[in-house]
Amino acid sequence: MSTIGIFDSGVGGLTVLQAMRPRLPMLDFIYLGDTARLPYGSKSASTVRRYAVNATRHLIDRGVQLVVVACNTASASALDEVVAASPVPVVGVVEPGVESALASGARHIAVIGTEGTIGSEAYQRSLQRRAPHVKVDAVACPLFVPLAEEGWGDHPITDQVAWTYLSEVLSRGVEALILGCTHYPLLKPSLARIAGPGVKLVDSATAVTDAVIDRHGRMALDGSTEGTVTIHLTDASQRFLRIAKTILGEPPEHLEVVDL
Amino acid sequence: MSTIGIFDSGVGGLTVLQAMRPRLPMLDFIYLGDTARLPYGSKSASTVRRYAVNATRHLIDRGVQLVVVACNTASASALDEVVAASPVPVVGVVEPGVESALASGARHIAVIGTEGTIGSEAYQRSLQRRAPHVKVDAVACPLFVPLAEEGWGDHPITDQVAWTYLSEVLSRGVEALILGCTHYPLLKPSLARIAGPGVKLVDSATAVTDAVIDRHGRMALDGSTEGTVTIHLTDASQRFLRIAKTILGEPPEHLEVVDL
Repeated sequence: MSTIGIFDSGVGGLTVLQAMRPRLPMLDFIYLGDTARLPYGSKSASTVRRYAVNATRHLIDRGVQLVVVACNTASASALDEVVAASPVPVVGVVEPGVESALASGARHIAVIGTEGTIGSEAYQRSLQRRAPHVKVDAVACPLFVPLAEEGWGDHPITDQVAWTYLSEVLSRGVEALILGCTHYPLLKPSLARIAGPGVKLVDSATAVTDAVIDRHGRMALDGSTEGTVTIHLTDASQRFLRIAKTILGEPPEHLEVVDL
Repeated sequence: MSTIGIFDSGVGGLTVLQAMRPRLPMLDFIYLGDTARLPYGSKSASTVRRYAVNATRHLIDRGVQLVVVACNTASASALDEVVAASPVPVVGVVEPGVESALASGARHIAVIGTEGTIGSEAYQRSLQRRAPHVKVDAVACPLFVPLAEEGWGDHPITDQVAWTYLSEVLSRGVEALILGCTHYPLLKPSLARIAGPGVKLVDSATAVTDAVIDRHGRMALDGSTEGTVTIHLTDASQRFLRIAKTILGEPPEHLEVVDL
């Protein structure tokens, strides 16, 4: 039985698990949320690298055959370090998001994310390298994670915050918006209203699932029974459980508090 | 020369340093912001206790003569552990805030704070123990810290968030609102608008400064020259520096990244 390890700073990466599981139903998943040290998005790149390598080693020790770095901040700042620390393949969320945005044919793409992700310029550099003709904008949206965690993904206040952050860039004719943070799919109702029907919302969770199936699809054939999901947390907060239930549609079953 | 050690999960406790310094100008201060592991407010009590004891030991090792737990979440969940770990006196922010609110003569007091602070019920229990006749309400306001860190303390969106959180409790006739988080003084313009002139806003930073001077005022006489301020951070984020400048009115001078 193959096992995919997914890690994120907290609860947001569950949107990746939720996108992946129905398409790879026979695999086992270990999801690691580094809830004792979240968020990564406002921390320095060197601290994020240290935490990401810690998290990867934990998953490797538990025997995973593929590591998905579901955290955009860690994918943007620490992917090289994670790849170097991992004897098994590693998939980040930045490249799949970029590929999906370019595949939409958009000629003007904006990426939104945490301060860490936007400050790393990982999305911007990847877009410019792959498609020098595409116009690229980037906006840090620090309030989006707390709004998502508050459960206000479809809320007039979130509409106003999104308008405050995004009206300028939208007015410049953006055609695709990369949701460069695993929390942001939870804000899709508000983001879709503010962006309007002409702007494609590119969801990391879907993009990384496509990438895993494209590149590692044979893993899906290795299992013979229904796969399990185990959740490891570095801190068992009530907040995680509440938001996890919203994302997964049910409370997580196998939950373990671990010390990295 | 006496040294006061102040610690907080991040930048919010600088409101305490800023309130304390002009009134104790001859003392040295070491401010420790545990920025690598912030926020404490959404984490479990056991994790907060571990982090708070870590932080206290760091300050003790640096020779402080008094520890101020400027973080409300740590004061609410971990004060006993910090006192047990400290050979020098410890002052938290909960009791001074409670005393200040009761001294206002309010007969109906609401405390606002992070999920961790409100969930610990430390404020509620202290108020009920000291003044059983006072009516007590408590509201967790998870978006207030990110709004303060975004610099939106005087902003129409913050007004609306505050209204969403507080309108119900305010309609019940609250006379004093304890700002049970060191970030919240940054939101005073919005909070004052929403609460109205009939509601006293009780600021932790001022209350804890009064408590330190009342109980340990002689320390202020020990110095003979102008005191220094040293800032220790567990993660050197740009965000800390930006917000520190807003709170202190100037960029912090002596800054050191430490590993707890």
